[in-house]
Amino acid sequence: MSKEPILLLFGKNVQKYRISQDLSQEKLAELAGVHRTYIGMIERAEKNITLCNIEKIAKALNIQIQELLQ
Amino acid sequence: MSKEPILLLFGKNVQKYRISQDLSQEKLAELAGVHRTYIGMIERAEKNITLCNIEKIAKALNIQIQELLQ
Repeated sequence: MSKEPILLLFGKNVQKYRISQDLSQEKLAELAGVHRTYIGMIERAEKNITLCNIEKIAKALNIQIQELLQ
Repeated sequence: MSKEPILLLFGKNVQKYRISQDLSQEKLAELAGVHRTYIGMIERAEKNITLCNIEKIAKALNIQIQELLQ
């Protein structure tokens, strides 16, 4: 199954902000309160993330949701 | 269960743009390619919408995803 462009965009942005803040996937998962394997799946666009989890990740990165979608 | 503020915000915005474009819930569902009862559930913040469906609704309303999240 080909990956959805919007999920690829979102995952790429999560990875960009996470790395710029020197966070591991595990640390970001802990900060966001999601499962430790979840961030990797999101960054690889393997999961169709829900709005509540989008918000958790944005908060953990201290950024606006909008920044993860552009 | 209390409703998540981010889902309430999203639902209120979907309703606002839908009504401003004189669309019924059924018509918006048809344009977005989602089930006809789905838009009502989203507007009432009863469903934790996924990113792919957020994009479908934004496209059907001819707006940016960001406009539904602010």
